Parts: sequence; C-alpha cells; structure tokens
Amino acid sequence: MNSKSPSAKRGPKPNINTRDNLLRAGVNMLHSAGYAASGIQDIVTVAGVPKGSFYNHFASKEAFGREVVDYYFSSGLPDLKAALTDPQVLPLHRLRNYFEQKTRFFNESGFVRGCLMGNLSLEIADHSEVIRDNIAANFMLWSKLIEDCIAQAQEFGTMRNPISAPVLAQFILNSWEGALLRMRVEKDDSPLKDFSEVVFGSVLI
Amino acid sequence: MNSKSPSAKRGPKPNINTRDNLLRAGVNMLHSAGYAASGIQDIVTVAGVPKGSFYNHFASKEAFGREVVDYYFSSGLPDLKAALTDPQVLPLHRLRNYFEQKTRFFNESGFVRGCLMGNLSLEIADHSEVIRDNIAANFMLWSKLIEDCIAQAQEFGTMRNPISAPVLAQFILNSWEGALLRMRVEKDDSPLKDFSEVVFGSVLI
Repeated sequence: MNSKSPSAKRGPKPNINTRDNLLRAGVNMLHSAGYAASGIQDIVTVAGVPKGSFYNHFASKEAFGREVVDYYFSSGLPDLKAALTDPQVLPLHRLRNYFEQKTRFFNESGFVRGCLMGNLSLEIADHSEVIRDNIAANFMLWSKLIEDCIAQAQEFGTMRNPISAPVLAQFILNSWEGALLRMRVEKDDSPLKDFSEVVFGSVLI
Repeated sequence: MNSKSPSAKRGPKPNINTRDNLLRAGVNMLHSAGYAASGIQDIVTVAGVPKGSFYNHFASKEAFGREVVDYYFSSGLPDLKAALTDPQVLPLHRLRNYFEQKTRFFNESGFVRGCLMGNLSLEIADHSEVIRDNIAANFMLWSKLIEDCIAQAQEFGTMRNPISAPVLAQFILNSWEGALLRMRVEKDDSPLKDFSEVVFGSVLI
C-alpha cells in the first residue's frame, strides 16, 4: 500500500470502520458485477456511507480497486496458508484437499463469481497497471505456496515428474483459474473435476 | 441464431453491411474494453452508423453480445479446423503447432486482449444466459477439435496417458484460457510457455 492518504485534503478524519465497510462492499460488488459495472455511487450505497467518505479513504476508483484486490486475497490467505503448509498432511494431499474444498464451495454456491483476481485480470489488467501489479503480486504469493508443496513432494520422492516445481505450480494455478472460468460458463463442476483428474492423475505423479 | 428480426417493427430494411460493420466493431470493442464498458453509442460510432441502425439489426445489447460471440469464434474457426485436422501432420504435432502459433501471435501483439470468449465468460456469464449459452456451445466445438487429435494419438499408440480424450481436451482448453488470463497480468509469455512445457511434457505423453 503506497497510496497517499488524501485525508489532509478534504473532509473529516477517515474512520477505519468506514474504510473497512467500503472495502467489503467493494469486494462484494466487484466480485458479483465486475469493475466497470460497479459505480462508486453503488459502492457507497451498499457500504451505507456518504459519497464524500469514499474520497476520504481512496484517491480514485482505481486506487480503491487496487486495495480491494489486497483485501480480497489477504482475507483468504490465513486459510490458504493453513491448508498448504500443514506439516501433519503429506504435501500432495494438502494440494488435493485444498482444491477439493474449493470445489465443494463452488458446488454449494452455485458456480458463480469464481475468483475475483481472475475476473479483474481479464476485465482490467490491460487498462490499469496499478491494479494489475497487485494481482500479479498476490498470484505470486499463491503460486509460491503451491510450489513449496510440489518441491517437498519431489524432495520426498513421492513425485516423479521432473518438471521444475515453479513451472508446475504456475501451470496448476493458471489451470485452476481456467477451470473456474469454464465453470462460470458450464454452471456445473465438470471443469473442476477435469482439473483434479488430470492434475492429480498425470501432472503431480 | 434464433433471435427474431426486429426489422418489421421499425426503420428501413436492414443493410447487411451495416450489420457486419456493427458486429466487427462489437468484436473489437468488447475484446479491448469489455462488455460493460462498451456502450451502444460507442459501438455505433466506431461502426460509423446511426444509432437507430443498431436496433434495426439487434433487439438489445444482450442479443448483440450473443451474436458478437458467434462472429468472433466463427471468424477464427476455418484456421482452427485447418490446424487441428491436417492429415499431413501427426495429431499431437497439430496441437503443439497450434498453441505455438497462438503464442507467437500474443508475443507479437503485446499480451493484450486474450480470448474474447474467456473474457466474456468471467464478465457476464453469471448475468446473461443467452450469451453464456453461445460461449458454451463454441467452447464445445473448440474442445471437440482438440479431443479428436488426442483420441487419434491414443489410437495410434503415440500417447500413453489413459485419461479419456474428452477430459484431457476440456482440461487443456481450460488451462489455455487460464494461461491467457495470467498472461494478461504478467504481460509476458511465461504462462504460455509453462502451459506448453507441462501439457506436452507430462499430460499428452
């Protein structure tokens, strides 16, 4: 976060709860409707704050979008880390459990929304460097956790595939994003099942 | 195409060139800016036709979006079919050549835009059943061409992976969409190279 606080310029002292409410409303709206379709007026209405408050906390919609990406990813990071670093579970089992848990989640939630970072990658990565930079950094954190599982499995000798752990991890993360994309179109879990069948049946072996 | 022609309701007889201009402008705008960010006014301006002409050809923006998807996919279909059904080339080589050619294209065009169907999958698949249906049908045509290559390779005995050709084909298509998504964020071809390394090094073997 290197955006300058615009609080000195206008309005009262920013309220931390207002900021949090705006970010939560932003995650929700950008995730369900997309970036272009989410106006600042809609976001402040959902957050239940006056429009002026928005600019006490964020210099622009783009600066807001950048922070929404971090808010979204950091909200899920503790669970992601817990799942992928649990020393009680074999590394490839951690990965399998993680993707199975995600598959159950999308089954229960009706195959909508997918991954906010994936959505914004396609909608605005060509148009906003600051949002793209944050998405890229978070994808790297995510793939590094996958990579560590793969590197451990290779080290333990429980995996024969000689392709490097970083390449396999990036491929798997990108393939997961592609499976979520297709899930949004098919409105069933077949793309997620195909992902598991191929990744655990012919890549991580 | 089962949309009813609205021509009887208003305006002069629709002009086939106008329709084509609108669809070409639509592919271009939806591909570069996205669905929500492309207004009908912008589209008619780019197409160089009066706004009323739009409604002589399309009942709504959604009906237009549906036809843009078909226009986009069918424009690329002859090349796609030629690449993936060439009997002079071994089936797995056809696939490798096809993805290598696409990788060169994205290198030359600066890693922008990606796949219009993938973009619309994430932006509007949750909101428009008619557009989603068309994307789904085109993805099926595409994956069937990939599947036929894989089935032939399995039949010829040039591939050992016993996972069924339809599952492998869907996985590969979805993983390609995921690689394009990540390419848009990284702005380099590493996701496309990772895709080729893993798909041709540990899936289609």
